[in-house]
Amino acid sequence: MSGRPDGAGLAELSPTPRLLMGPGPVDVYPQVLRAMASPLLGQFDPEFTRYMNETMALYRQIYRTGNHWTFLVNGTARSGIEACLGSLVAPGETVLVPRFGRFGHLLTEIATRVGGDVAAIDTDWGTVFSVEDICAEIRSRRPAVLAMVHGDTSTCMVQPLEGLAATCRETGTMIFVDATASLCGAPFETDQWGLDAVAAGLQKCLSGPPGTSPVTLSDRAADVIRTRRHIEFGIRPEGYIEGEGPRITSNYLDLSMILDYWSPLRLNHHTESTSMLYAARECARVILAEGLEAGFSRHALASRALRAGLTAMGLELFGDEAGRMVNVTGVHIPGQCGNGDAVRAELLEDFGIEIGTSFGHLAGRIWRIGTMGHVCRKANILRFLASFDAVLRRHDVPAEPNAAVDAAAAVYAAEQDRTG
Amino acid sequence: MSGRPDGAGLAELSPTPRLLMGPGPVDVYPQVLRAMASPLLGQFDPEFTRYMNETMALYRQIYRTGNHWTFLVNGTARSGIEACLGSLVAPGETVLVPRFGRFGHLLTEIATRVGGDVAAIDTDWGTVFSVEDICAEIRSRRPAVLAMVHGDTSTCMVQPLEGLAATCRETGTMIFVDATASLCGAPFETDQWGLDAVAAGLQKCLSGPPGTSPVTLSDRAADVIRTRRHIEFGIRPEGYIEGEGPRITSNYLDLSMILDYWSPLRLNHHTESTSMLYAARECARVILAEGLEAGFSRHALASRALRAGLTAMGLELFGDEAGRMVNVTGVHIPGQCGNGDAVRAELLEDFGIEIGTSFGHLAGRIWRIGTMGHVCRKANILRFLASFDAVLRRHDVPAEPNAAVDAAAAVYAAEQDRTG
Repeated sequence: MSGRPDGAGLAELSPTPRLLMGPGPVDVYPQVLRAMASPLLGQFDPEFTRYMNETMALYRQIYRTGNHWTFLVNGTARSGIEACLGSLVAPGETVLVPRFGRFGHLLTEIATRVGGDVAAIDTDWGTVFSVEDICAEIRSRRPAVLAMVHGDTSTCMVQPLEGLAATCRETGTMIFVDATASLCGAPFETDQWGLDAVAAGLQKCLSGPPGTSPVTLSDRAADVIRTRRHIEFGIRPEGYIEGEGPRITSNYLDLSMILDYWSPLRLNHHTESTSMLYAARECARVILAEGLEAGFSRHALASRALRAGLTAMGLELFGDEAGRMVNVTGVHIPGQCGNGDAVRAELLEDFGIEIGTSFGHLAGRIWRIGTMGHVCRKANILRFLASFDAVLRRHDVPAEPNAAVDAAAAVYAAEQDRTG
Repeated sequence: MSGRPDGAGLAELSPTPRLLMGPGPVDVYPQVLRAMASPLLGQFDPEFTRYMNETMALYRQIYRTGNHWTFLVNGTARSGIEACLGSLVAPGETVLVPRFGRFGHLLTEIATRVGGDVAAIDTDWGTVFSVEDICAEIRSRRPAVLAMVHGDTSTCMVQPLEGLAATCRETGTMIFVDATASLCGAPFETDQWGLDAVAAGLQKCLSGPPGTSPVTLSDRAADVIRTRRHIEFGIRPEGYIEGEGPRITSNYLDLSMILDYWSPLRLNHHTESTSMLYAARECARVILAEGLEAGFSRHALASRALRAGLTAMGLELFGDEAGRMVNVTGVHIPGQCGNGDAVRAELLEDFGIEIGTSFGHLAGRIWRIGTMGHVCRKANILRFLASFDAVLRRHDVPAEPNAAVDAAAAVYAAEQDRTG
């Protein structure tokens, strides 16, 4: 931090450059940072509402959906999750939550607080469910809503979602998915998988800042939400029709009003977070310019290279191989490193690189190393491995010199050969 | 909008420069825009948590309070309001809401949704309450919470708050205030006025982007909120003590968990909106570097100059003079201009200047012209008046040529003479 001190006694903000390879937030695309420095437009300026509409169109492509209702909730990813569950789940309705990590517990908590009757099923952290097992639970419990995490960064595992929809249609169950950790890092097919509501954040593979949450809703989900429409006095439009369903508990996270804001009605529910909308638009634009498939490949390649390097160092990866995410890697902390915090602190202070630990019983037992978004480039992977190797050596976890870097470089070289 | 088209079919974001003189958002300080273009830090990076602590210290000065619990809620101003009311008001408790504009109705709505039993009192739009009248209601109804708007931009009026606290202490009533529209535009004294919870946004006189909400809580308010503490499984810390009060309905807007996030415990409730925290810190730093009093004077001067100009054009200001805000001015729309929307559109399209209309029965009856934050400079006031005069002349509202500009310039000249 440097800069001119002033009357407030503080210098201007000047963050030290980092390489963010934890579970998020991660390094932001430079185009996105520049966009956030743009001057504001008023929320009803036709140019701004055009940006809102463009953002809807861009996120339809990101989510691979034809859903008209694809928009932003103004808060971190958690706000988008709560907006979806709070608007979809009526008090007393059954919500099935299959849990394979910490974020399943978050869904349980949110669904419970908004009045849902949660039926949870659990699998060991480091594993995921078979689609068949979930379908059996759906048939038996017939929940109003199935609430799932796609990629749970707490365990670095990803839950297959394809094949759930047919059963959910039989039982009249809506599917909500938290795609925060996986979106744009690996294929995500809202329509093909038959999902009704999906929420995410920008701070993982979208390589943006946290603070706004892209959400998409099927028409079926939007219809349910519309039955709970209630607009406060003072901004009720002419011809307003109150929904017959139970009022949504939150006003700020009331999707029925937020849909009106993102419609030609432009209901003044809140003032859109201008700069965060700029960021969201630019994240999607940069990603689609690269191409979703190209981005998935870049994530998968970075992940393969990272894992080759870690394995060459003699480290053990966490979790069932089949269910591992391609954009965050869990590594068992070697005994010599205690809870691993000293290693993380040295990586940050001496090398400017951030990685994470985990939650619950995995806190201090695994490190989590993210390869997300703009971070997924060879120079970052090799820089990380060289630095990590140096720090671990200090902690008596010696690897063959250069083994990690060479193994990762070989993965990149093989890919170069393959693609010519 | 210009720039290179790309694979997504959209050019990079490039908003047309505007002069934002509506009720907010307004032009952002250039230092704040630059800060938002800074690369991210991880949320537990010691440098970032230092920025969080600095932000707490800065907003204590902004709010003129010794309250330890002074922090950000990650959403627009409405999220901060709902976080305060949802965390303070237990189901069934009485909430007194004196309403003098649209935002009083918002407080009614939010307090009702979170389970409060709202007792509202109303005064005509364009007037405010006497403190004595509110105190009489407090004594008679003995509410758990008094929820007030300070400046209501819908009517451009400001409600005096000094003198409420003594009565509220007698009745055990907490005072919540929405300071969004007034904070940093006019004196606001959290401690001297005995307020227990205050929420605001950045997009008015703080001259930042909407998207994060500075909140301050008295120890008394924080103690009440702590009785409702509940942390979801998966992130519960060792030695966790569950509160005995009713669980807060929202998880995202649960201040008991947000306090833990802003404490040395650094509970991972959500990932702080990094870039918006940068913005909030810089807004406060720039404002305190100017000095709060100097900023109030700059707002008052801009407002006096604007009103002198508008009056010289023969326009009629809205609302009781005694209760008018100094940072947003209501003007009756002359009959020749219909609902005023054509004038607003021409100002925006031909002159790049935004002003607003209002809500409810004032929609299409008054224009609202903001003089907030970075906007409050002579060049902007004169530019606005010259442009407004030109547009109104097209609409057959002729004023004496240059009368508005001369009147406003004279106010600035007199101030220059006065201060030397």
